[in-house]
Amino acid sequence: MPTVPISEIVQFVEGRYTGPADRVISGAGTLADAGPEQVTFLANPKYAALVASTGAGAVLVGNDFEGTGDRWIRVADPYFAMARVVARWFAARPQPIGISPQASIAASATIGANAGIGPFVTIADGVTIGENSVIYQGVSIEAGATIGRDCIIYPNVAIYDGTRIGDRCIIHANAVIGSDGYGFATHGGRHHKIPQIGIVRIENDVEIGAGTTIDRAALGETVIGEGTKIDNLVQIGHNVRVGKHCFLVSQVGIAGSTELGDYVAVAGQSGFAGHLKIGDRVQVAAKSAVLEDVADGVKVMGIPAMPFREFARREATLRRMTKKRQ
Amino acid sequence: MPTVPISEIVQFVEGRYTGPADRVISGAGTLADAGPEQVTFLANPKYAALVASTGAGAVLVGNDFEGTGDRWIRVADPYFAMARVVARWFAARPQPIGISPQASIAASATIGANAGIGPFVTIADGVTIGENSVIYQGVSIEAGATIGRDCIIYPNVAIYDGTRIGDRCIIHANAVIGSDGYGFATHGGRHHKIPQIGIVRIENDVEIGAGTTIDRAALGETVIGEGTKIDNLVQIGHNVRVGKHCFLVSQVGIAGSTELGDYVAVAGQSGFAGHLKIGDRVQVAAKSAVLEDVADGVKVMGIPAMPFREFARREATLRRMTKKRQ
Amino acid sequence: MPTVPISEIVQFVEGRYTGPADRVISGAGTLADAGPEQVTFLANPKYAALVASTGAGAVLVGNDFEGTGDRWIRVADPYFAMARVVARWFAARPQPIGISPQASIAASATIGANAGIGPFVTIADGVTIGENSVIYQGVSIEAGATIGRDCIIYPNVAIYDGTRIGDRCIIHANAVIGSDGYGFATHGGRHHKIPQIGIVRIENDVEIGAGTTIDRAALGETVIGEGTKIDNLVQIGHNVRVGKHCFLVSQVGIAGSTELGDYVAVAGQSGFAGHLKIGDRVQVAAKSAVLEDVADGVKVMGIPAMPFREFARREATLRRMTKKRQ
Repeated sequence: MPTVPISEIVQFVEGRYTGPADRVISGAGTLADAGPEQVTFLANPKYAALVASTGAGAVLVGNDFEGTGDRWIRVADPYFAMARVVARWFAARPQPIGISPQASIAASATIGANAGIGPFVTIADGVTIGENSVIYQGVSIEAGATIGRDCIIYPNVAIYDGTRIGDRCIIHANAVIGSDGYGFATHGGRHHKIPQIGIVRIENDVEIGAGTTIDRAALGETVIGEGTKIDNLVQIGHNVRVGKHCFLVSQVGIAGSTELGDYVAVAGQSGFAGHLKIGDRVQVAAKSAVLEDVADGVKVMGIPAMPFREFARREATLRRMTKKRQ
Repeated sequence: MPTVPISEIVQFVEGRYTGPADRVISGAGTLADAGPEQVTFLANPKYAALVASTGAGAVLVGNDFEGTGDRWIRVADPYFAMARVVARWFAARPQPIGISPQASIAASATIGANAGIGPFVTIADGVTIGENSVIYQGVSIEAGATIGRDCIIYPNVAIYDGTRIGDRCIIHANAVIGSDGYGFATHGGRHHKIPQIGIVRIENDVEIGAGTTIDRAALGETVIGEGTKIDNLVQIGHNVRVGKHCFLVSQVGIAGSTELGDYVAVAGQSGFAGHLKIGDRVQVAAKSAVLEDVADGVKVMGIPAMPFREFARREATLRRMTKKRQ
Repeated sequence: MPTVPISEIVQFVEGRYTGPADRVISGAGTLADAGPEQVTFLANPKYAALVASTGAGAVLVGNDFEGTGDRWIRVADPYFAMARVVARWFAARPQPIGISPQASIAASATIGANAGIGPFVTIADGVTIGENSVIYQGVSIEAGATIGRDCIIYPNVAIYDGTRIGDRCIIHANAVIGSDGYGFATHGGRHHKIPQIGIVRIENDVEIGAGTTIDRAALGETVIGEGTKIDNLVQIGHNVRVGKHCFLVSQVGIAGSTELGDYVAVAGQSGFAGHLKIGDRVQVAAKSAVLEDVADGVKVMGIPAMPFREFARREATLRRMTKKRQ
């Protein structure tokens, strides 16, 4: 980790700081753990009590923060400022450099300049990897897939044939992109496989969590829109279309052909039935089951999912009744 | 993709078609996306409105379909016909051919004729792979496991020792077959591992989704019955017995020693407690928690799961009461 | 499998046995399947009826078991005794021996004596592997990670940089340890990644199931306490702290920064919101959603989770009302 004069950090985040100018920072930590050469931040008021006792050399806080001492760097958005500081100085991660002689790369594949490819990677016929992209060990990229530039694909990810991935995407270990959708025609008492010949298309700036699975379309495309962030162990069915800048938290499942608008936020363990239309800026609370279309901007929760207010009324009714009956 | 005279397709699906005889088809698409050389289909009435505007050169429709134009191929079951047409002409997928010199194969393993084995595959002592089976890159097959003929094992699947897999099975990327069941004996404040020395046995024509995990039996067998289709990220506990021709949709979990009959259909994110008996043709709605035995043919939903009718009555009651109390 | 005189087994488990002294045992099975040279056990009263018809040569039963015949080995805890017997004689599993020439091991890595490392394993700079640990094929261990002694890491597990794993840990296939936590700062309509620069620390005697994902801390540590046993497809968010000797059953999810005490038991498919404090010995029923702190020893269930008694009252009320309204 580099050693950074605090003045550089203050300038970088456009913050206000009144402490000693000769302080230096060489790392980042939590309010509870950070030491005198580490920067930390306060964003969640739940942790405000820890500020008094933190050992951090510098604390990114909101402009309206009231505290005595000289360690505060006041900014408009301390969480975002922290993210920028860490990314700028303290987030380097070791990664494959160059092309490993232990990788298996088809002669017809195209590897961009400065790409890093680890050992035991398989890159099949006609695959394209963009400039500066990093493919960790054990990744499988099947025929005809394309990966944009500045992507990071962590170990043991499996990318099926024909998948298209944009620029600056991050895919965490053991995720699967482009596996067959779940489609069968039952005939004569047996389930016959519907061949899944569509693809998965992932737009720019998407992040996909560890162990997440995204099925290819039966026909056409399964799409993950630009800037969408998907957590671990999420399941996306065939022909689903997720809009731009959505959040899909861990263990969410979306059944086939459902469409999500932009800026949709889905909390953990929620599920969507198939063939639904979910509007822009919809919010889904944790562990909900969305079984009907949802209009733009509506917040839903419950099994089956209903608007927040309706859910709250139902809960209140249930509590009253349970009490009365005791 | 091959170019196929439409007459060949009509004959293959035993359909009725009155359009021009010289039409050719060279691919398949959705109602929304298909072009003049592509075949599509209409099965879900939800999409009937798209038929008028589709650009497809041929549309597989039901025998009772009413529409003007000359693009219709009328059949008894358009979804099944589409599956057959795509599988016959338009579903070829690139796969490993021959045995990669970069695979690690024990001298005592038996590899059937025409099997394809990709790079970085590990095949341990005494493993048997049947004729025509395809093992993609990065798959691990531990000692003594047997894989039948005409199977496809996608990248990075892990198959533990002793697992027995039938013919024509498909296992998607990063699935795990035969990991230890979750069994511990607590003694003196510590949890002692119960060694899991049984196996997983998978019968013919089973498909298993990406990231799904199937635990080996503690003793004896965990069994997946013939023709059963399992989606992504499903968890099957030790000593579970799933019957024949079942559907287990994504993110379902089945706790140890539970038995499912034949033709059971379980929707996404549902779970079963352990040691249950679930009859034939039982249907479980999405996100249910099955905590008791279920008799043949019963449809259940809810947490805890109850018969459909009971769940509907409960929902109706709750709605009425919540309204009254406003 | 070895052939063991029954007297050795009786002595090992400190049991009472009155049958023939010349009996031998060469394996273990279930009550339903075991043969005359196999040992089995009866712990769950649900299976008591099977004892009369079992073909097993020896049955570990409780001290108060009443049955005629000469096959019984009476012990205080038959489940624990069975675990010990199987582990002692009948649980050997083939595993990599020595260091495979097909592994990729950084010169700066330290590999302990008697470690076994399979083909296609990647061990990056500065990694330490303890004595007797076994790393199966396809495992990825990134820079600076440490693995203790007597660990077993099954195929295709991905361990990110800096992860610290204790002694005698078992990690099943395709699990991911140390992937980035799910943290973003939304600014100007885009979600900016919060670099995740903390680590995962796993204490001694932890077992982690197949496909489970444990995210590294944003800052500081995500911790899994000593002796905790985690099932398959579980998701642990960044900065979570799981106490000692906990059970987390399959498909459980724990959102960021939540802390669990010791001896917490969480049944399948349950979830926890972030930033919660869950006390010691808390029990969470299956498919619950824990949205608030829970005090020591409390048992909760439901969505949202509430104490068992409250949930039972609510269920009873709902049943009564639904009946009345019919």
